[in-house]
Amino acid sequence: MNNIPLVFWLIPIASIVALGMAWYFFRTMMKEDEGTERMKEIAAHVRKGAMAYLKQQYKVVTIVFIVLAIVFAFMAYVLKVQNPWVPFAFLTGGLFSGLAGFFGMKTATYASARTAHGARTGLDKGLRIAFRSGAVMGLVVVGLGLLDIAIWFVVLNAVYEGENTALITITTTMLTFGMGASTQALFARVGGGIYTKAADVGADLVGKVEANIPEDDPRNPATIADNVGDNVGDVAGMGADLYESYCGSILSTAALGATAFAMNGDMQLRAVIAPMVIAAIGIFLSLIGIFLVRTKEGASMKELLHSLGLGTNVSAGLIAVATFVILYLLGIENWLGLSFSVISGLVAGVVIGQATEYYTSQSYRPTQKIAEASQTGPATVIIKGIGTGMISTMIPVVTISVAIMLSYLCANGFDMSLSAKSISIGLYGIGIAAVGMLSTLGITLATDAYGPIADNAGGNAEMSGLGEEVRERTDALDALGNTTAATGKGFAIGSAALTALALLASYIEEIKIAMIRAVENGKQYFDAAGNVFDPTNATTIDFINFFQVNLINPKVLVGAFLGAMAAFLFCGLTMGAVGRAAESMVQEVRRQFREIKGILEGKATPDYGRCVEISTRGAQREMIIPSLLAIVIPIVVGLVLGVAGVLGLLTGGLAAGFTLAVFMSNSGGAWDNAKKMIEEGHFGGKGSENHKATIVGDTVGDPFKDTSGPSLNILIKLMSMVSIVMAGLTIIFL
Amino acid sequence: MNNIPLVFWLIPIASIVALGMAWYFFRTMMKEDEGTERMKEIAAHVRKGAMAYLKQQYKVVTIVFIVLAIVFAFMAYVLKVQNPWVPFAFLTGGLFSGLAGFFGMKTATYASARTAHGARTGLDKGLRIAFRSGAVMGLVVVGLGLLDIAIWFVVLNAVYEGENTALITITTTMLTFGMGASTQALFARVGGGIYTKAADVGADLVGKVEANIPEDDPRNPATIADNVGDNVGDVAGMGADLYESYCGSILSTAALGATAFAMNGDMQLRAVIAPMVIAAIGIFLSLIGIFLVRTKEGASMKELLHSLGLGTNVSAGLIAVATFVILYLLGIENWLGLSFSVISGLVAGVVIGQATEYYTSQSYRPTQKIAEASQTGPATVIIKGIGTGMISTMIPVVTISVAIMLSYLCANGFDMSLSAKSISIGLYGIGIAAVGMLSTLGITLATDAYGPIADNAGGNAEMSGLGEEVRERTDALDALGNTTAATGKGFAIGSAALTALALLASYIEEIKIAMIRAVENGKQYFDAAGNVFDPTNATTIDFINFFQVNLINPKVLVGAFLGAMAAFLFCGLTMGAVGRAAESMVQEVRRQFREIKGILEGKATPDYGRCVEISTRGAQREMIIPSLLAIVIPIVVGLVLGVAGVLGLLTGGLAAGFTLAVFMSNSGGAWDNAKKMIEEGHFGGKGSENHKATIVGDTVGDPFKDTSGPSLNILIKLMSMVSIVMAGLTIIFL
Repeated sequence: MNNIPLVFWLIPIASIVALGMAWYFFRTMMKEDEGTERMKEIAAHVRKGAMAYLKQQYKVVTIVFIVLAIVFAFMAYVLKVQNPWVPFAFLTGGLFSGLAGFFGMKTATYASARTAHGARTGLDKGLRIAFRSGAVMGLVVVGLGLLDIAIWFVVLNAVYEGENTALITITTTMLTFGMGASTQALFARVGGGIYTKAADVGADLVGKVEANIPEDDPRNPATIADNVGDNVGDVAGMGADLYESYCGSILSTAALGATAFAMNGDMQLRAVIAPMVIAAIGIFLSLIGIFLVRTKEGASMKELLHSLGLGTNVSAGLIAVATFVILYLLGIENWLGLSFSVISGLVAGVVIGQATEYYTSQSYRPTQKIAEASQTGPATVIIKGIGTGMISTMIPVVTISVAIMLSYLCANGFDMSLSAKSISIGLYGIGIAAVGMLSTLGITLATDAYGPIADNAGGNAEMSGLGEEVRERTDALDALGNTTAATGKGFAIGSAALTALALLASYIEEIKIAMIRAVENGKQYFDAAGNVFDPTNATTIDFINFFQVNLINPKVLVGAFLGAMAAFLFCGLTMGAVGRAAESMVQEVRRQFREIKGILEGKATPDYGRCVEISTRGAQREMIIPSLLAIVIPIVVGLVLGVAGVLGLLTGGLAAGFTLAVFMSNSGGAWDNAKKMIEEGHFGGKGSENHKATIVGDTVGDPFKDTSGPSLNILIKLMSMVSIVMAGLTIIFL
Repeated sequence: MNNIPLVFWLIPIASIVALGMAWYFFRTMMKEDEGTERMKEIAAHVRKGAMAYLKQQYKVVTIVFIVLAIVFAFMAYVLKVQNPWVPFAFLTGGLFSGLAGFFGMKTATYASARTAHGARTGLDKGLRIAFRSGAVMGLVVVGLGLLDIAIWFVVLNAVYEGENTALITITTTMLTFGMGASTQALFARVGGGIYTKAADVGADLVGKVEANIPEDDPRNPATIADNVGDNVGDVAGMGADLYESYCGSILSTAALGATAFAMNGDMQLRAVIAPMVIAAIGIFLSLIGIFLVRTKEGASMKELLHSLGLGTNVSAGLIAVATFVILYLLGIENWLGLSFSVISGLVAGVVIGQATEYYTSQSYRPTQKIAEASQTGPATVIIKGIGTGMISTMIPVVTISVAIMLSYLCANGFDMSLSAKSISIGLYGIGIAAVGMLSTLGITLATDAYGPIADNAGGNAEMSGLGEEVRERTDALDALGNTTAATGKGFAIGSAALTALALLASYIEEIKIAMIRAVENGKQYFDAAGNVFDPTNATTIDFINFFQVNLINPKVLVGAFLGAMAAFLFCGLTMGAVGRAAESMVQEVRRQFREIKGILEGKATPDYGRCVEISTRGAQREMIIPSLLAIVIPIVVGLVLGVAGVLGLLTGGLAAGFTLAVFMSNSGGAWDNAKKMIEEGHFGGKGSENHKATIVGDTVGDPFKDTSGPSLNILIKLMSMVSIVMAGLTIIFL
């Protein structure tokens, strides 16, 4: 342990501070009054439903984890193609991610009634309760993520200390613990996404369209399920997604750093811990941002947005400055260039967020045009929305492309020679750009998790029949949440793309380790010319040439086709899943309206529990096939088409998946807000034919923006992660 | 000329036979009676509208051709980075493609009334007129395409005969004449696609939904424009698309053959003309197939399908057998393996066609499920349709992937070593698989062009008020056309993908030629290690390594992102274009209903001409931006990111574009048939709420399947073509 520099201990300290502050925010929130009996009762319903769902999901996930852990153990101890620590690292990755989801959601479900009650006192009080409860999720995610990283680094360092390639072994082994986080995220995102939209679509189709009762009306049997859905989809699902990006970006950057500076042992160690230190400092800066979020009574939407914006922007600005200091003090080679890599990641995040807002907010032309198209019926609303979503892919893709090139070139001093050294440092630059983007996740995730809490508070206020004034306040908080949700999605996708790219680059490192292990076990490799290929001293470029990972190799081209197809297939399956699950919900709500007399007159209580159960069962059943597919495709491609095919698959999947995700999220967001615009009185207003046309758009947009689109974030990262963990198996047949 | 083998002359002979037979079919058709005065009048309206559109389109295209020809002339004569024959080859490619569109459409517009009149005599008579008129299009396309190829081969052979690398120079120069065909195809597909769907959507939205009058009703002012649209979109657009694939696949395969057999001059010549000979024989076999198509009175749908299927299947079966004979007689190295490459292309075409039918025909579950979803309204119809379309990408992508691997491996004797030789022959195998798939285009295109003729015949019969029995017959012919349209689209996409892949591979050859030319002009190239790179004796693999076209090069990765984005952006723009053009049509139809008294009672004639004009202007205006984009993106990427970026772009664009095209075409086809299923009396039948829900699906599907989806075929080929023609410019800045 004596080789670990003092600055390392900042990492566990930061993670413990994050967890401590999360606990503090949780306790403070719990001390607030939950309001009237009716409010407590509704909150309890939602809480019970959410926890029942989570319990059910964790059951399924546990089975998958046991199976996968056995597979990894078999690979590690029998086939000896994997590091012996991997099965354990995998399990802790999953466990910590699951814990973060559990705590985050528990907090959210306790906070909604309290937020509604707080809104009775004033807008600031409501905002503070909701936002700080959201911050619990943010802080638990970064705290647990960084803690897991710190623990494993200390353990593996103790095991491998003194070995020649210790840091490469440590970082590539740690990378595989991201697989645990990925697997957990997969089920949380896919299952949660299906749950929330089955409930939402089901509730809307019968409640709003057929029975003509408003949103969140207590007469609608699916309304509790809808509120539960916000929690399981938008809190737990989003949290697990970003937990994975957070850990994945830090771990892959560490692995890329270990390779890039392999020639310089001391520098190597500092390059490995640099992303962790940036993340640790990011926690403190996030906390500063969180304390800055407050507002005054009667604040306008713009002022509310400003309060939230102030927090996130201050944190982002400070981390930009801090990065220069951290990298300078760590004495990393070309610290200045690498700092600019981080800046390019941060700027890309902001630009993508802004572009998302432009394409999905009713303040701008694209969404206004969709609302306008309602005059010619639902078909033109759909055509316009799909067209807008597709066009909206341009800015994010160009931005990410520029960020990739800049973070690569800043890191290696604008060296396009593609020498082994320039590539390694360039890829490290891309990784550290992703880390920069995610370093203030503590506050950005708080902003995301705030949304569903405010939404639920609104639901609670509506169902409890609180006064007009309170409803107005919760509506304002809710509207704020919708805007942050759209930009949050842009951020989640952008960071997922950069993380996936860093993971893709790390895959080569993992293959290298696997081949070295195989050679140590007596295997020999021959190149195309028949010469023995020695992986020990080979550079990244040597591996690329050995596996002929170029665009004239049909395996790579076929891999790219399959990757693009995987993205579409995955979306198609999740869309279908939402359709089927929503269908059962519709049948159940119709049945209750028919069989329980007096529901619509408000004289009888609907059977909320039955709807919660249907959503839970539907989500559990429907998430299996798409999830397994995401795990199976990279394994099969690896076995059939080898390393070249896998890299083609990852590239095709990343390029098509990222673009498809942006398209679906933005179309969905734009439809949602086009509908809201009409509800505010434009183009005929509520209840008009135009309104009905936009409801069709919104309903189609629900699975677009909350199920299929966000699930693609997981797919693109998970396919890389699976490939990394299965690297040993892929090269065994060589 | 003395080095040209005798068998070569089969090629011009076949093309002249094709043109002669086309003339014969045209004359026979023209001798038929066009029916009543009313029928003649309607046909004249449609013909006038179609020709007016074509004239307008050719005007725009002429300007683009002049500009591009000047650019190419500048590159050839001033910058000296392009072969001096390219500007001329480019112009003939465009001219011949334009001529094919003109003749095909002229025939189609003369045939519709004659088909309707023929249907008064009997079903077989109607089928024969419509199908043989469609065959005119098929034969003109293959005839003119092969004639252009033959002429240029003779000319360039005379110029370069005796030079060392004559065949490589000849084939890479000829390849650029495909650019003319591509440019023509771009405007035909995009402009035609926008025209037809603006008219169709506009006619449906007001006519069917608002005024409640049936399809093709003479009271609808947009009905003539709708019929014109079938001709300009489905005849001229589809024809230009496949003309491009046909020429592109033959030319790129010839170029790949010249490289693969460069070491063996005699074999090289035979490898170059092999794809042309296969295409020539394909013409004769298509003619056999065309004569086989006939049916008996009162034939069921199944029997009608059988008649058409018999023709295409016999042609395809015969070409499979003939390929073995041709390649054996030509004495091509590994003729047996290469023949199996052709078989894999043919089988892939059949499988994709079958899969398309499965996902889009009302005889199978996917489409039935969409119809069923109408019970919960339009939103679930859309969700289900999109989900189905996305899932339907799996079989085509896997099929194309298998076909790519098999055609590659069969050609080089299952050599995965990626030696320079094995790659070249493998790529030649992929090219020849595409040629095999397209060799019987004479009859497959006849089947495609038959559809809109039958559709127009139905429209003519409806508008002329022909008897119930005649309508039944034309309906049967029309329904047959809808089924062949779906499989035809699958075939067009599949062949476009293989052609684009062959073009992508040829791009390297073009870069090679451009660099050799630059070196001859005194330029020197240095590799990463600083050594002089000599392009003259370099292999394909050497170029790939020189440009570092591998998946760790950020330029390649960024290129792939941009390629995927280009596909989505292009679709988004064309969707938006249809939306806007349809909007003006809706306004115009509403205006006529309002201002011209007595239209709806059938007492006043609507102003058809005005609607035709609006569609024409809308299509012309709207096609400019997406079209320019398709040309500009590869040029900009080439200049900024170089050869590596371009290959990334083409790969990303091909993988994402192919998948997106399949998704959009199949969703659109499935919605169309789900609507038809309800109209046949299922789930409530015509006029029910469920029917309205599926009309929304159908309307959304219109631009999916007839504008954006098919336009992607052009995009993926055109981006390769532009890159090929601009190769000289890309390497000038190296």
